[in-house]
Order: sequence, then structure tokens, then C-alpha cells
Amino acid sequence: MVPEGKRVSLVEKLALFDEYSSPRIVGELNGQYVKLAKFKGEFVWHEHEHEDELFLVIRGELKISLSSEELTVRAGELAIIPRKTRHRPWCTDEAHVLLFEPKSTRSMGESGASENTQGEWL
Amino acid sequence: MVPEGKRVSLVEKLALFDEYSSPRIVGELNGQYVKLAKFKGEFVWHEHEHEDELFLVIRGELKISLSSEELTVRAGELAIIPRKTRHRPWCTDEAHVLLFEPKSTRSMGESGASENTQGEWL
Repeated sequence: MVPEGKRVSLVEKLALFDEYSSPRIVGELNGQYVKLAKFKGEFVWHEHEHEDELFLVIRGELKISLSSEELTVRAGELAIIPRKTRHRPWCTDEAHVLLFEPKSTRSMGESGASENTQGEWL
Repeated sequence: MVPEGKRVSLVEKLALFDEYSSPRIVGELNGQYVKLAKFKGEFVWHEHEHEDELFLVIRGELKISLSSEELTVRAGELAIIPRKTRHRPWCTDEAHVLLFEPKSTRSMGESGASENTQGEWL
């Protein structure tokens, strides 16, 4: 459900949670979710079978390891990771990131881990 | 086509064009385009029959008039305009905006105007 005129402040939403590597949903459109996440440390290597994934860095610097290279994505930059591409987000210092991905996307790809969810609405 | 590890700097891309109300495509995923636009002045009233639309303000302040209210979306804020919702983006001073919408979306909705396009790749 997308109410008319939904306006979202990224900073206000990011102030509502502290947990790392636990994306929260802040918007929905065209079968996609807009999520916010805080990262610090290493996330797991994973891939999404059917979904491309966008990382837009709002604060800090996010590294995304790929099989053959490593991306450094700074505040004001975005990266798109195509489906079926193994990747591992990580960062030494805290980074705040906006994610854009289909509603079906789970954070750890096809992993059966209990914490591998689509995230909760903020 | 989404190449592995596409990284995009919003500021660098925004420096590549000056035209107002002429969104440029900077990324593609899951059948959606990521676009950048510069707005100044009034855009036309329009609606999208089948597509919800996201406006993420990067710089400045964007007003979005709706039939019953007016949104003020500042840098670091986003707004989602659902399909079939008449809206008119406008601003007095220049604003820089990231758009996220299905590939089929044309800037002026169902208008037959020649400048009503999906935008070009930057």
C-alpha cells in the first residue's frame, strides 16, 4: 500500500534503529521495497537468484566484495549488483545505506538462516 | 543490461547536464530505471496510469503539488507518488532529484508531447 504523498526523511528513519545488517523497509512502489540499513563489519557472502540490488550510500563508505573485484561506494554514490552475482558488503566504520530491491528479496539471498528476512517496516 | 559492479557517483553524473525537467538514466535494475533530474520552475500536472514514482531529493527543495495537499521534500528526503495520482513537481530554486520508476515511465505521464520521453542514458 502506497498512501498518497508519502514523504520520508532518511535521517529521521535512520535514528529509529541501531542494529547493524538489519535492513528496515521505509517505502514501497512497483513491487519494490525501499529499505534503510546500517552496516559495520562484514556481512555474509551471498547472491540473489532473481533480484538485482541497489546500494545507495548515505553516510560513510561501503565496500562490496565481488568475485573479481572490490567496489568502494562512498556517500553520494550508488552501486547496482546484478542477480546471480556473489557479493559481500562490508565496512570498517559505520555506513548508512539505502537499498532498493524487489519485495521478494531476502538480505542473505537463498540462505536458510532464520535472520534472512525481507526486513520489517519502520 | 546491468554490468557487474556498476558504481555511479550522483554528483559526477549531475555535472554532465544542465537542462531542467529532463531526467537522465543512470542505472537499471529489475525492470526499473534510476534517473537523475534537475528541476527549476514548474513542471506540468500529470499522472502515471500504471507506475508509482519515487523522488529522492539530493540537493535543494522540491515541492510536489497533489490534488489535496502540497509536499515539501528536502535534501535527504524522499516521496513516493502512487500511480493514478495527479501531481506537479515544482521549485523556485534549482533542485537535484533521483527518480526511481519502471522503465516504461514517461516523464509527463500519458501526455502525447514530443518531449514526453523515458529519458536518455547519461
